[in-house]
Amino acid sequence: MLIDGRQYRTIWLAPNKKHVCIIDQRFLPFKFVIRKIHTVGQMVRAIKDMQVRGAPLIGAAAAYGIYLALSEAMKKQRGWDFMEQAFKLLAASRPTAVNLMWALDIQRLQLKKAGNMAEKREHTLQAAEMIAREDVERCRVIGNYGLPLIKKISKQNKGRPVHILTHCNAGALGCIDHGTATAPIYQAHRQGIALNVWVDETRPRNQGRLTAWELRQQGITHTLICDNSGGLLMREGKVDMVIVGADRVAANGDTANKIGTYLKALAAYDNQVPFYVALPIPTIDWSRESGSDIPLEKRDPEEVLCINGLRHGKMQKVRLFGAGSTALNNAFDITPARLITGFITEKGIYKPKDLITLLKSR
Amino acid sequence: MLIDGRQYRTIWLAPNKKHVCIIDQRFLPFKFVIRKIHTVGQMVRAIKDMQVRGAPLIGAAAAYGIYLALSEAMKKQRGWDFMEQAFKLLAASRPTAVNLMWALDIQRLQLKKAGNMAEKREHTLQAAEMIAREDVERCRVIGNYGLPLIKKISKQNKGRPVHILTHCNAGALGCIDHGTATAPIYQAHRQGIALNVWVDETRPRNQGRLTAWELRQQGITHTLICDNSGGLLMREGKVDMVIVGADRVAANGDTANKIGTYLKALAAYDNQVPFYVALPIPTIDWSRESGSDIPLEKRDPEEVLCINGLRHGKMQKVRLFGAGSTALNNAFDITPARLITGFITEKGIYKPKDLITLLKSR
Repeated sequence: MLIDGRQYRTIWLAPNKKHVCIIDQRFLPFKFVIRKIHTVGQMVRAIKDMQVRGAPLIGAAAAYGIYLALSEAMKKQRGWDFMEQAFKLLAASRPTAVNLMWALDIQRLQLKKAGNMAEKREHTLQAAEMIAREDVERCRVIGNYGLPLIKKISKQNKGRPVHILTHCNAGALGCIDHGTATAPIYQAHRQGIALNVWVDETRPRNQGRLTAWELRQQGITHTLICDNSGGLLMREGKVDMVIVGADRVAANGDTANKIGTYLKALAAYDNQVPFYVALPIPTIDWSRESGSDIPLEKRDPEEVLCINGLRHGKMQKVRLFGAGSTALNNAFDITPARLITGFITEKGIYKPKDLITLLKSR
Repeated sequence: MLIDGRQYRTIWLAPNKKHVCIIDQRFLPFKFVIRKIHTVGQMVRAIKDMQVRGAPLIGAAAAYGIYLALSEAMKKQRGWDFMEQAFKLLAASRPTAVNLMWALDIQRLQLKKAGNMAEKREHTLQAAEMIAREDVERCRVIGNYGLPLIKKISKQNKGRPVHILTHCNAGALGCIDHGTATAPIYQAHRQGIALNVWVDETRPRNQGRLTAWELRQQGITHTLICDNSGGLLMREGKVDMVIVGADRVAANGDTANKIGTYLKALAAYDNQVPFYVALPIPTIDWSRESGSDIPLEKRDPEEVLCINGLRHGKMQKVRLFGAGSTALNNAFDITPARLITGFITEKGIYKPKDLITLLKSR
């Protein structure tokens, strides 16, 4: 993705191979901070604190985390207990995104391969790099498959801008590059299609700021709205389609995504607005029959009670609610498959009921 | 309502009859500020800036505004032009709440009554006091009618707390006392029924802080949630009923209320959770056939881009989004009648299709 005119990915190995670099997303859109991650402990913290977030990026981050753990194990002569602990801490860092578990499974296989520690370390590095590289490619192809949907609406609109609503950040920042929900948008923009993206604020963590920031970096017209607004806009005919990402999709198509996605899907259904979920196939958890089998993360109520913003050029945390009030902070909800028009994947677009054919064709 | 253990209303005439006192709600929940309003210009500003807000309270505030205007006209020897201007400015201060127009119509009638200026002024004062007094009584009766709904659920729950979700503040702070949506809740609490109120944050103006604050003042258990959360809670069976207020209801039952109400109504319908609108009858606009005839206010995008919070004991405004992003700030949406279980009014509970009988029985 372009940031200040330069190409970036969200995570990469330093040339000295001693640390991994990430964009610390907690400071966006106000400050562009690149953070060096030297240890698996730092990577666990980066995932937990949402320095990196988004299901595909969390997967890659965990894979690099195992590489860093193995480097540490070699340097400090730690045993397999240390590695087991690393797997455990990474797996527990965010419970909902399935890409995390998928990436850790791949790294477990690397450790089982023949070879000494140095060779195993090289295997985990290669695997982490491959996971990142493949995610970029998957997102690119998701963009290819999503593009005709936008083109078609643009034609129907006779050139009037295509209004696309998105929730949270399923953008390049949530992946390695391109994004999932944003990939078709970026492609359409490159083809000169007029667009306006309705960017949901996405309380409590305001990932809408990330989406707005990266859209602005690519020069795409967008409008911020509160999470409450999407329903009215759809009733008023001001939304042509919805595209969101996913943190985990069950075999039946029920989709865990950022809290509030379900409400937008209900409104889209009520107003016959097409509702698409864009995702790489590793986000599908074939072991879960339906949404009720997916664990949904609850986060610290402080995220609801307080918010970070900019004042006099500095990030400041202000308290939104009075003392003595408690809050509940559900991070994800389930959108039932019946509300979803289609899944845009790297293998094509699937209706919820056809998703299962992807498993059979593996 | 109890505030720090003392009884308050949200608006009242000073004993010297020279000014009107309001609770400046912009500082809640952090600071309890009583503001003196001396002129109609100050009252227009108080309504526009949401120092006072909530359809019933706006109605009373406008009525007092006309009294203040007449006092000014007498003191400064202004003509009827001044009064016409006062009506116009008050009418334009918030476009959606119909109680405002209703109260102004009542005051127009007072001005047409026989008598000199001093007598006319007395008429407008009496009318404003009556509007406030009658609103208190209406809300009290709304509480009486709503109470059995909560009682019934409490019985079904076998004493487990009744979980009620509310959006925005349709509380005592939005009225003169008791509130509309909160009136049944306060009654139930007084009768010892165990409750938990899910309080929607209600971005962008965060009126959830007002609801949380007044519930806490009355000692009622409540939990703050982001506007995104209600759908999941309903899917999880954690919401027994929804009660919201209204800013204007069309003759067919379509309801204009705070932006985001429609999304909660969709979720309630999808999960068979009863969805009630509590309102005094002056909130019904019989001249509007359906929701599409109701004008919906848009407010300053700054309300989306920035937020007020507390830091080091001081109210501070922080910027939530980066420079270069624009925002849209719709203040209200329309919830179609088909999603509404019933209207709790001072004349009883009505299904949307029966609402019209209230007009016929006038």
